[in-house]
Amino acid sequence: MEYQYEHAVEILRRTPTTLTVFLRGLPEAWTTSTEGPDTWSAYDIVGHLLHAEEADWIERTRIILEHGEKRPFDSFNRTAMFETYHGFSLDELLAAFEQARAKNLATLSELHITPEKLTLKGTHPAMGTVTLSQLLATWVVHDLNHIGQIVEVMSRQYAEAVGPWSAYLAILTRPILTE
Amino acid sequence: MEYQYEHAVEILRRTPTTLTVFLRGLPEAWTTSTEGPDTWSAYDIVGHLLHAEEADWIERTRIILEHGEKRPFDSFNRTAMFETYHGFSLDELLAAFEQARAKNLATLSELHITPEKLTLKGTHPAMGTVTLSQLLATWVVHDLNHIGQIVEVMSRQYAEAVGPWSAYLAILTRPILTE
Repeated sequence: MEYQYEHAVEILRRTPTTLTVFLRGLPEAWTTSTEGPDTWSAYDIVGHLLHAEEADWIERTRIILEHGEKRPFDSFNRTAMFETYHGFSLDELLAAFEQARAKNLATLSELHITPEKLTLKGTHPAMGTVTLSQLLATWVVHDLNHIGQIVEVMSRQYAEAVGPWSAYLAILTRPILTE
Repeated sequence: MEYQYEHAVEILRRTPTTLTVFLRGLPEAWTTSTEGPDTWSAYDIVGHLLHAEEADWIERTRIILEHGEKRPFDSFNRTAMFETYHGFSLDELLAAFEQARAKNLATLSELHITPEKLTLKGTHPAMGTVTLSQLLATWVVHDLNHIGQIVEVMSRQYAEAVGPWSAYLAILTRPILTE
């Protein structure tokens, strides 16, 4: 299906509340455990989503609208949350994500994303030419990808506990989700 | 990590609200689209979760507690929701899932799942001997698996729309999640 502003925003505005309802108050055994070295916990993933909200989507949207392909996007640091939000509680990250997302959706609304603007082009530092439509669709899939990663890392804490049922639960055994 | 009743219940009681916050009111383009023939939409998956709530977890728990290994579980029909809930709206399925889950958690609480009871055994019709602990851990991972499946099928509606970013979004390209 093609990118549609109204459809996309319906998901973007639900993600922070969904994660808050799901994660707030859970025992840390669920939220701070990873899938092994160099993998992320639910806590880490919420920090990553917050960082993308502060440094990626709207900034890149503005660059496309103001500079087109002439000015490449800054590269995005996928692991910045480990330093930027060091010491934050999960509740603090969730609340900050909710606020940052609400602010970004208000900004996006003010930018009046018309079908014409969606065809405008920008330059990704690694991938080259992309369109505003592709950037905004990626914002949505990035949310979905990381919700998927959160349930995956949590599920793997019970990889042994389910015994023979692991054969029926693909989330436990397939290659892990990353960015 | 080992199965712990208190930890597990914390997830089980959040799943219905999480799905309601995420899915209620979304355009049908998101909730009724599949990943292709013989795959499930978000709507189908909520129906499957409801059916498992009505026919699987608590019934199998009772069989283990009352009959042990002597009486095998009935086999579970993974696709019963297509007939059982035909004509239900997504809102109706979500509300029914919330009610069924709340009732089952109340029942589970009344059954007083002690560490001793967790070691009791039952007979799965295909896998043979399983423990109550494994069954109850599977209930949790089954929720997580299907939340993962919901975000996956939704993400794939934008598989083309993200353009070159698909290379960075594993949720779009890896083998699909099923049961």
